[in-house]
This record gives sequence, structure tokens and C-alpha cells, in this order.
Amino acid sequence: VQEIEWTLEMAEKAGYPHFMLKEIHEQPKAIRDAIHGNRGIISKVAEEIAGYDRVIFVAMGTSYHAALVGKYLFQRLAKRIPIVEEASEFRYEFEDLVDDGTLVIAITQSGETADTLAAMKLAKRKGAKVLAIVNVVGSMATRIADLTLYTHAGPEIGVAATKTYTTQLTVLTMLAIELARKLGTVDPEYLGELERGLELVPDLVEDVLTHEESLRELAEELKDKRDFFYIGRGAGFPTALEGALKLKEISYIHAEGLSAGELKHGPLALLEDGVPVVAINPSGKVFDKMVSNIEEARARGAMIISLSDREELSRVSDVLIKMPEVDELLSSIVYVVPLQILAYHLAVLRGNDPDKPRNLAKSVTVE
Amino acid sequence: VQEIEWTLEMAEKAGYPHFMLKEIHEQPKAIRDAIHGNRGIISKVAEEIAGYDRVIFVAMGTSYHAALVGKYLFQRLAKRIPIVEEASEFRYEFEDLVDDGTLVIAITQSGETADTLAAMKLAKRKGAKVLAIVNVVGSMATRIADLTLYTHAGPEIGVAATKTYTTQLTVLTMLAIELARKLGTVDPEYLGELERGLELVPDLVEDVLTHEESLRELAEELKDKRDFFYIGRGAGFPTALEGALKLKEISYIHAEGLSAGELKHGPLALLEDGVPVVAINPSGKVFDKMVSNIEEARARGAMIISLSDREELSRVSDVLIKMPEVDELLSSIVYVVPLQILAYHLAVLRGNDPDKPRNLAKSVTVE
Repeated sequence: VQEIEWTLEMAEKAGYPHFMLKEIHEQPKAIRDAIHGNRGIISKVAEEIAGYDRVIFVAMGTSYHAALVGKYLFQRLAKRIPIVEEASEFRYEFEDLVDDGTLVIAITQSGETADTLAAMKLAKRKGAKVLAIVNVVGSMATRIADLTLYTHAGPEIGVAATKTYTTQLTVLTMLAIELARKLGTVDPEYLGELERGLELVPDLVEDVLTHEESLRELAEELKDKRDFFYIGRGAGFPTALEGALKLKEISYIHAEGLSAGELKHGPLALLEDGVPVVAINPSGKVFDKMVSNIEEARARGAMIISLSDREELSRVSDVLIKMPEVDELLSSIVYVVPLQILAYHLAVLRGNDPDKPRNLAKSVTVE
Repeated sequence: VQEIEWTLEMAEKAGYPHFMLKEIHEQPKAIRDAIHGNRGIISKVAEEIAGYDRVIFVAMGTSYHAALVGKYLFQRLAKRIPIVEEASEFRYEFEDLVDDGTLVIAITQSGETADTLAAMKLAKRKGAKVLAIVNVVGSMATRIADLTLYTHAGPEIGVAATKTYTTQLTVLTMLAIELARKLGTVDPEYLGELERGLELVPDLVEDVLTHEESLRELAEELKDKRDFFYIGRGAGFPTALEGALKLKEISYIHAEGLSAGELKHGPLALLEDGVPVVAINPSGKVFDKMVSNIEEARARGAMIISLSDREELSRVSDVLIKMPEVDELLSSIVYVVPLQILAYHLAVLRGNDPDKPRNLAKSVTVE
């Protein structure tokens, strides 16, 4: 008989070849846990922050992209315009700009990100109210903050954040809905619909995960490409940034996320035959505008990979990644998942270890 | 005798092989004209906008980078935190977020950028005060705006913006200084120093222009590189974005501008032997932090091209582009100039026409 050595690490990976893939697949459960874990507390937190007109998000990396989604949600639902700052900028530029009328929302998976902790300490020193959105229980961020919301994603081992990102978005969605309810800024019936929609998001993610094999095949086709562009508008813009970051981190392909409206102002010059352009285009307010941007890129010979629930997009796309229908405001959570899977398979096909990307650490605990 | 055909275009280029190079060299005069052209009006404009606590910049492309510098200047001097939005996002997301207590500052070279005009019209419809910073006299933006400041750069023919960018920065600097004076947010003596410093900026740019040959030689060395990264912090961050955009537009090299603090959160994975990293590092508040970021990149084998007034940076750089001393708050105007020249020569060496980059138009007058 052949003996198979069953290491602790293999056990921890639960049959998946890498932690990252395991964590991608854990997202339906993680999102459910984030919803259930915050349901009892979100109203109280929203109550405590509702009075703050000046809201500043601070974060780095993937958490910064979550903050951009947070900004979008706060704008659409709570009719607030948050400022989103990299914590590394905030800590050196905002000394004179924060006071006790300011709410700072710090997002950090580990709760130990050096720049984010420094930003939080500065905010506290100036009398601001500080809310932390954190994954690791009892981490330093939770000790500095006035209020903490946990993402309840469980431990994340892969260096490239996946389930901790989608659960950050889940918590931000719940917070924006509850804030809108307190402020009376949006029809309460629509808020109820959104809440019920959020409950279904884990099932939608489950559905996306069943298409992994076709994404792996797409990765085969793309594995020798040198440059990728990801484009989006509105809620799709942070998704474009995050999709590009995943690719950068683990596949070492130069991927860049762009606001689709900026294409004509420069980046179009880079597009030539076969350059992949990944377009995030859920049904919603800017769907048609995105179609125009896709057509611009296509006219220059780019290879268009669209993510959309609308079949008609296949007319202007080389590849359509068919997505489930979902409210535009919830789409960021669902649409990032195929981009995680694509980045994972590109990394593996290029011979990289997606769990241990070169030059990167899981948490950036030094400045 | 040999007859030389002297075309109108050659005459207009005044001996330069391309409009872009001519316009780069016109910057000292253009900046002087911007200062002198606005000196009489800037105080009145500052007076009219001083009461607005909520400031939103809207712009696209290079003008968007100017808006980011404007944000930095408003923060440092006027102690305001402006919101900076791509006009293409603002027009679809800000309908419910703008009212008569809002100041919208629209920046557009042509005064005809479709997205920016739409953003301005939305702002007007909602009762906001609209200030336009425009180059082309009598353009549509000036007709929509309540107030206009001209950049006085003269006609710009090259598709890649150069003198219109540095004059936008000049106007924004004057405005931020004057606003700070009205609001009493900064020691007036320092404001006087800054004003005198700004008067000297044209001479500093002149000085930078005398080093064109060494930048051309650097371009020779770099011309086969496929990827560039530009990094900066504070005022250096928009400069990094703008330097990367110039390269994208005319040399078709995939260049990306990054906030230096984000390196460790992903982009470091892309750095390997010989990848050029252009680091913007004037003396100032974050100089030492930038040195750390440069060292991170260098440890991964990147080719470091530093822009700084501090000789000591040659210790951690492969190339040091030695810059004149200038106040950090004025540095964006001076530091972008070598990046324009570098992009120009890279384009020419790669056989491109820098005046007519593929896929791009001078003004984006359609959505």
C-alpha cells in the first residue's frame, strides 16, 4: 500500500490545494456569518454615528477598496459624501483637519496595519469618533476604536484577501442601510428589499463558485498576457481596482484598475490587439455608459471580458462571464468573486504559489 | 541651391520638432502669464468662495491630477478637505448630494470636456456655486460657471497636456494661498513667502529645462522597458499619477502611478530586477517615509530613478534627477517637468509621434 502523508497543513486546507482557494469557497458561509454576527449590533452602531456629517474612511490595500465601496453606499443610501484616504496619507496630512465633529471609519482585516493604527490614534487624539471594521478579534485596532464591527470571516491564511474583503463589504452594506433608515434618506421599503437581497447574496456567490471550471479555462487562454486592464463605473470601479490588485499580488501580471470614464483621457493609447480589458457591468444606472466604454476599447482591438447579468453584452464582448441578477448596490460583493478565481488560476498556471506571493506579507505591521 | 519647404506647421513649432516639446519649453512663460493674469482677480474670487465649507473638485485626465494637487493645497493652506471626483462619476452619482451650500471647482483645459460640462450643469441646477479653471477663453465651461479663472497658457496643440497642467497648478496655488489669507488659517508671513516662491518657479522650471539632454540620455537607457511605476506621497502622489499618464499617452508603455504607502499592500509583487520605479521625493514632511519606500523597491531589484533636491538620495538610487530646492507646496509644478521631458523622448525614441498619440483626441468633447 502507498502511504499518504497527511500533514497538518493539508488538513487545514480541507482538500483544497491552497488556502486562497479554500477561502474563496468559504465566502458564502463567511458572508452569512457577517450578516448574522452583526444583525444585533448594527442598529446601535448606526445610531451612534448618524449625527456625524463629516465621515472619513481610512484604510490600505484591499481594505481601501472596501472603503471606496463604502463611500459609494453612503452616498447612495445615507446621502453623505465620505472622504476616503489612504491611512498612509491621512496620518501625515490630516493633523489639522480632524476634530470632535469627525467620524473616522478605519477598515483593517488584521487590526494591526501600522498606517491604519497610526491614523486611528491621530483621529482619537484630535477627539474624533473612531469606528473600526476588523476581522481579527481583540486586535489592536479594536482596542483603539470607540466602536468595532467585526467581519466574522474567520482566519484568512492566503496573503491575497478574499473572504475578508467580501465580508467587509457586507458589513458596510448593513451599516449604510441602517444609517439610511435612521436618517430617513431613502424609501424604507427599498431598504427592506436591500436587506432581503443581502440575505440572498451568499446563494449568489455559491452560484458563481459553481462556474470555477470555466474561469480556469479562461485563465488557460489568458495566462501569457502581459498587461490587463479592469474598468468599471460607480460600484464597479472599486471592483475593477480590487480585481487588478488580486492579479498584481499573486500572478505578477501588470494589471491596472481604471475608472471607465478615464479611458479616453489617456489609457486608450495602451490598448492594442488582444490586450485583455475586464469590464465590470452589472445592470444599473451606468450600464449603458459602460457599454460605450467597452465599445471604445473594442474598437482598438482589445479582448473584452465582460462581467454582467445582461446577455446582450455578449454582442460587444469576446467573453461574457454571466453573473446572477443582483441589485446594483449589492453587486460589488458578488462581482469580485470571479475576479478572485481568475487571479488564483492565473497564478497557479504561471507556476506561482498564490498563498505566498513574492515580496508580500499578510499584514503590513510595519510602516 | 536646395530649397527648403517651410510649412506653416514648421513655423508654428518655432524650430522644435514637435508641438509637445515646444509647449514644454513654453512653461516658464506660461507660468509667469498665469501668475500675472490672475493677480488682479484672485482675491475677489477667493472672497467669493471663502464661505463654502463643502468643496468638490470635478475634472478628468490631467485636469483630475491638478484637482488632486488642489486638494492637497486646500488641505495644507485653507484647512479644508475637498472632495475630488471624476466628472464622469459626479454626473451620475451626485444628483442628491449637491446643494446651494456646495462649491464645485471644475478644471478643464479646453472648457469643452463633455463629462465636466455635464457635471457643471448638474451642479448649477442644484444651486451650487461653480468656479471653472479653464485655458480656452470663451469656451462653454466659462459660460456655465459663476466664476472663471483662466490659466493663460496659450494654445496647446500637443495632445498630452503639459503647460496647461503646470498653469492649472499655478492658479490653484494662488487660490489656496489667497483663501488661507481670507480664512486666517496659516501664518500670513508664510503665505507671503509662498507667493514670493511662486514668482521664482518659472526660473526653476527654466533651470530644469537646461537638463533636457541628460533626460534624453536616460530615455535611451530606458526605451525598451515594458513597465514603469511612479511613486509619491503627499504633493508627490499626483505628480506620480501625471508622470505615469504622460508615458501611457505618448510612449504606449504601461506606466502606473501609485501612492508610495500602497507598495507593500500589493504592487511590490510586480517588482523584479530592472523594473524602473520613478520616485518623486522633494524635501518636506514625508521625505524620510519616501526613502523607506524607495528602499523597499530597491531591495526587490527595481531600478530606482529619484527626483529630489537632496543629494543623499543617490545612495539609494540608480539615477538621481537633481532638482532645484523648492517649497514642498510648490514642488508639484517643478517636479512634473522632467517627467514630461522623459515621456517625450521615450515616445520619440520608440518611433511614436508625441503630438498625435494613437486612439486619443486633444479634447474629449463626447461622453
